[in-house]
Amino acid sequence: MSRTVYLNGEYMPEGEAKVSIFDRGFLMADGVYEVTSVLDGKLIDFEGHAVRLERSLKELDMASPISMDDLLEVHRELVRLNDINEGMIYLQITRGAPDDRDFVFPDPAKVPSTIVLFTQNKPGLADNPVVKKGIKVISIPDERWGRRDIKTVQLLYPSMGKMMAKAAGADDAWLVEDGKVTEGTSNNAYIVKGGKIITRELSNDILHGITRKAVLRFAKEAQMVVEERSFSIEEAQGADEAFITSASTFVMPVVEIDGAKLGDGTPGPVAARLREIYLEESRKAAV
Amino acid sequence: MSRTVYLNGEYMPEGEAKVSIFDRGFLMADGVYEVTSVLDGKLIDFEGHAVRLERSLKELDMASPISMDDLLEVHRELVRLNDINEGMIYLQITRGAPDDRDFVFPDPAKVPSTIVLFTQNKPGLADNPVVKKGIKVISIPDERWGRRDIKTVQLLYPSMGKMMAKAAGADDAWLVEDGKVTEGTSNNAYIVKGGKIITRELSNDILHGITRKAVLRFAKEAQMVVEERSFSIEEAQGADEAFITSASTFVMPVVEIDGAKLGDGTPGPVAARLREIYLEESRKAAV
Repeated sequence: MSRTVYLNGEYMPEGEAKVSIFDRGFLMADGVYEVTSVLDGKLIDFEGHAVRLERSLKELDMASPISMDDLLEVHRELVRLNDINEGMIYLQITRGAPDDRDFVFPDPAKVPSTIVLFTQNKPGLADNPVVKKGIKVISIPDERWGRRDIKTVQLLYPSMGKMMAKAAGADDAWLVEDGKVTEGTSNNAYIVKGGKIITRELSNDILHGITRKAVLRFAKEAQMVVEERSFSIEEAQGADEAFITSASTFVMPVVEIDGAKLGDGTPGPVAARLREIYLEESRKAAV
Repeated sequence: MSRTVYLNGEYMPEGEAKVSIFDRGFLMADGVYEVTSVLDGKLIDFEGHAVRLERSLKELDMASPISMDDLLEVHRELVRLNDINEGMIYLQITRGAPDDRDFVFPDPAKVPSTIVLFTQNKPGLADNPVVKKGIKVISIPDERWGRRDIKTVQLLYPSMGKMMAKAAGADDAWLVEDGKVTEGTSNNAYIVKGGKIITRELSNDILHGITRKAVLRFAKEAQMVVEERSFSIEEAQGADEAFITSASTFVMPVVEIDGAKLGDGTPGPVAARLREIYLEESRKAAV
């Protein structure tokens, strides 16, 4: 069934949703994005994503083509039109399509930003069977640009990383820079050791995950100890358990890193508990 | 006047040339490009660009949607249709538009690559008056990804670099990593000292410039000494002269780096001579 998507103020069938070849998103990766999950037909942490979107736009001096109130309405309308109970809403804003290709930013008064939103229907997103067995990750060098805190569409390397993981019989890759894990290809990375939850501190080196923020808050509220610092693959392999967080996987256990099983190779209790709390609290706060 | 552009096998008015919002070039910067100059209505170093394109595609496991012979014909047809005497032809190939967004590469048997070409008419390209006074550059940290040898559309940082240069009253930026210049935002960087032409050696850190290759060959043929090694901004500021090369600027003198004038602040003889040789030889070999 064809989706109804949103493009520059209009709802239309996905097959008709096209952008100019001069769009800077297409020619220069000059765009940012967000992915918001939907559970029970409601948006999970919409405000967190909206705030991060504003920050990404600001860091790139990019104009927002929509108010946050209208953005919420478009999200809700897409959920309704596409009858999404569980799934994701993808949103992308680019610096628009000037008359010609040029490295210099176009005048925002003359070239409006491009805005696109579409849904991804994922029944069973919360009850994902993969959670029961956990995922395997490999480590690869982090070859991305230096501003990973800005959620840009420069996703070629993360995409290559997923392919490297697949080729190695794993599910995902953790990126390593200067001997330490930065994050996963599209998620934040955590280990658990002696009851402590360890995850890299925020900086320009990693995405400031919306799910990361919520999970750390819930962990602290549940009296768990959180240590924000970087860790190596070796330390991770010796940890009691490991997991990732992202808007679409929530909290997902990691059971193997570069071929080394963590503990007995099954998902650990901390990841399971955090997933449970996260889903419960997020459903309550969904809009 | 509206250009005629080429998109996926068809010639069409530029206003009609659109790609799906699901194109991986738009969503994930999963695409490569080339820019070939036109002088006297003929293509400069077409083969060099075609060979590098093949290499970029291969490095990314991306299928080519066109043979090199056909690619030459499309270039020539666009020159003819748009009556280009001096200018550029821009070419981009992306991994196409799958049915949905996914980090995993789509099956190339099911999802054809997207190919786009368009012209940029630039009368006076060879006789650019800027050559007479040279350009000013500033230095900025090199924040790009690690595979700059692949000519991908991940051009957000180079674009930001041009804006930083503009804000600083300069024409372009040189990127610095670990204390050494890698290259310009969209060109290779050179200094001249004691008669020697110094430019960074090829690696994954810089673009393997087609113009760079030709210029170094012509320099050697003219008995000039070429030293391929990296240099710092400080060394560059103390050089006799400096210049950049690219497919669209050919050889362009640099007269100021981070506010420090080189020599007397006017273009140097080595850059002038190399530009002359490059243009002469390239015009002869144009197809």
